[in-house]
Amino acid sequence: MMFEVKVYVSLKEAVLDPQGSAVKGSLHHLGFEGVEDVRIGKVMSLRIESNKEEIEDKVKSMCDKLLANPVIEDYRFEIEEVVSQ
Amino acid sequence: MMFEVKVYVSLKEAVLDPQGSAVKGSLHHLGFEGVEDVRIGKVMSLRIESNKEEIEDKVKSMCDKLLANPVIEDYRFEIEEVVSQ
Repeated sequence: MMFEVKVYVSLKEAVLDPQGSAVKGSLHHLGFEGVEDVRIGKVMSLRIESNKEEIEDKVKSMCDKLLANPVIEDYRFEIEEVVSQ
Repeated sequence: MMFEVKVYVSLKEAVLDPQGSAVKGSLHHLGFEGVEDVRIGKVMSLRIESNKEEIEDKVKSMCDKLLANPVIEDYRFEIEEVVSQ
């Protein structure tokens, strides 16, 4: 079975986000004064061939081993079966 | 009014994603052979003080001017009002 998986990785609340701060500064310079906070994360779209029983454990394992850094990042994911190819 | 905005920026379908290819290769090396495609995008979380009439135009303008590169990237966004602070 084919699955479409979205993994969202974001920095933990307590971790500074210099890239977000830079974007916030640039938005202020462009005149968007109302911007009070910017945080930047990643979203990964994966197509994975797997059986239904294993897909969730597989994605969790991918996140823990490679896609996210659990020391400074949180992640969540959505799994959707691709019905017709 | 305070708004919580999520901006999702992804490479257009036709644009090569070397970062995604690298992640796919690493997943294969880790034994996740079923991974057939990986695309990597950004998700930006912004807190913006604005009035209700202007918020959508503002966010669109931010995306066009700074947050996305319309030549190679697509974007979409979600706007939610923050009810209690």
